[in-house]
Amino acid sequence: MAELADHLRADMARVNALIRQHMQSQAAPRIPEITAHLVEGGGKRIRPLLNLAAARVLGYQGEAHLGLAATVEFIHTATLLHDDVVDESTHRRGRPTANLLWDNKSSVLVGDFLFARSFRMMVEAGSMEALRIMADSATALAEGEILQMGAAQNLATDEATYLRIIRGKTAALFSGATESGAVIAGASAAQRAALRDFGDALGMSFQLVDDYLDYAGADAAMGKQVGDDFAGGKVTLPVIRAYAQADDAERGFWQRTIAKGRQEPGDLAQALAILRRHGALEGTRQAAMEWAGRARDALDVLPANRLRRLLADLTDMMVSRVS
Amino acid sequence: MAELADHLRADMARVNALIRQHMQSQAAPRIPEITAHLVEGGGKRIRPLLNLAAARVLGYQGEAHLGLAATVEFIHTATLLHDDVVDESTHRRGRPTANLLWDNKSSVLVGDFLFARSFRMMVEAGSMEALRIMADSATALAEGEILQMGAAQNLATDEATYLRIIRGKTAALFSGATESGAVIAGASAAQRAALRDFGDALGMSFQLVDDYLDYAGADAAMGKQVGDDFAGGKVTLPVIRAYAQADDAERGFWQRTIAKGRQEPGDLAQALAILRRHGALEGTRQAAMEWAGRARDALDVLPANRLRRLLADLTDMMVSRVS
Repeated sequence: MAELADHLRADMARVNALIRQHMQSQAAPRIPEITAHLVEGGGKRIRPLLNLAAARVLGYQGEAHLGLAATVEFIHTATLLHDDVVDESTHRRGRPTANLLWDNKSSVLVGDFLFARSFRMMVEAGSMEALRIMADSATALAEGEILQMGAAQNLATDEATYLRIIRGKTAALFSGATESGAVIAGASAAQRAALRDFGDALGMSFQLVDDYLDYAGADAAMGKQVGDDFAGGKVTLPVIRAYAQADDAERGFWQRTIAKGRQEPGDLAQALAILRRHGALEGTRQAAMEWAGRARDALDVLPANRLRRLLADLTDMMVSRVS
Repeated sequence: MAELADHLRADMARVNALIRQHMQSQAAPRIPEITAHLVEGGGKRIRPLLNLAAARVLGYQGEAHLGLAATVEFIHTATLLHDDVVDESTHRRGRPTANLLWDNKSSVLVGDFLFARSFRMMVEAGSMEALRIMADSATALAEGEILQMGAAQNLATDEATYLRIIRGKTAALFSGATESGAVIAGASAAQRAALRDFGDALGMSFQLVDDYLDYAGADAAMGKQVGDDFAGGKVTLPVIRAYAQADDAERGFWQRTIAKGRQEPGDLAQALAILRRHGALEGTRQAAMEWAGRARDALDVLPANRLRRLLADLTDMMVSRVS
């Protein structure tokens, strides 16, 4: 990841300048304040990096990918603002959320501003096809979030539904970033499909790693507490797998802690024991590795250059946290 | 308005079909439920009508304006959903709001879905320039809402700031609808500017009529209670004008009722008396009439056909509520 960022450092500096420029508003100084709180809050900019890399791996020498990468980060930032309102979150990346520092209203409206600005920036990029891809990504993202809302504290959520949720809420923007980068670079149909599939599989892997680490990780590696998903009654893959194999007592445990949200001290440790007993954490780890494998395989049809190697390394790095 | 709607009935039927089609979601049945609650809630569809009329007044015979009109209504609907969350509203057009019937989370996320879908539908319309206009409208809309948030209960809001707020929150989508309709129809630069100015002035007039009637209107004409703006501590043009001329006692009255939000029985009647004493309601009415006059004047450069007459009639009808 560091090497990929280093390789694309010049591009990324210009993307950051575009982000700072387009978050300005003559009308309302609160917009750049809140946006800066998020975009300068220590995020890794993985989505814009993927967009730049997708264009550059195909040898793209133009500049349209820069605005597109800024666009992707704007959509991501808008989503974070709205997510934190929806989840009533108080912290993100170890800092207070915008809805806590300002208020829910500001987070909703600044998110709307960033969505609208992002489409304006896409118009600058000049590719109707890239616009179509990003509009579809943003639509899938909202659908994924809405589907997730219906799955909250809902132990009837099955694995297929869960995969649809994370394909929307996480993978859609990854694949939108890589596919639109490919389109800007004038990709062949095969290259375009490969970069879309790469982004999709990488996004799925990214989310499953996150789900795994939320139970199995060490605090330091994540910037959030172990057990957040459990505490929030989120039904993620580990819980879905364990619930499918639960005996009556375990079923009662999940009903009380997740469905009813009545948690007591010691419940997280018991949840971990149940997850381990059924191999649910190991299964989630395996699923993350499988998606990473699919992401790597998708790269095969791309030109065998340094950026392709860096994208493969990024994929390895992502799952190295669980392997 | 009825005649305009009648003249564009065939177009509008197809727009309604597009709206129903594009509010569907494989992923989340809650999306069409909530969207239907709003788009089938008895709104007058004035924004899509303006879009259709702008294209047709120039003799447009294609079909791209239909998707664009549906887009405009989607953006408007998304804004209503988010507005009701931001304002913590419980009723709109005499019915419970979506945030009351469902919850704030659903309103935020379904609004996001409609925003994203609206850009997807614009891509179908195939005009990059129309897309640019609508993205700018949506941006201005969010800026207007954010600026209005800063003006809430804030008696330091001056008239220039207030006009910027309503130009964003109301006029931007009117002018976006008329200008993008013009662009789709292949307008000359003069026709395009005229239709943009028409939409802008009509939107300004529309909002000022609303502000006037919120104090001076009869309940039946409005679908909302007289005095809602006062009760909500909204600083609208009547209050700005009266506050600028207030003596010490009146200043104290506005500080208590609007800035501090401490209202007692009889305050609305006293507010009305103060507004009338300074001619603030009459001044707002005059301002609405002036904007309507500008809207009518802008139509002069357009072809003198039936639709132009209907647009002029619509303008007259809008201010007939105050004249």
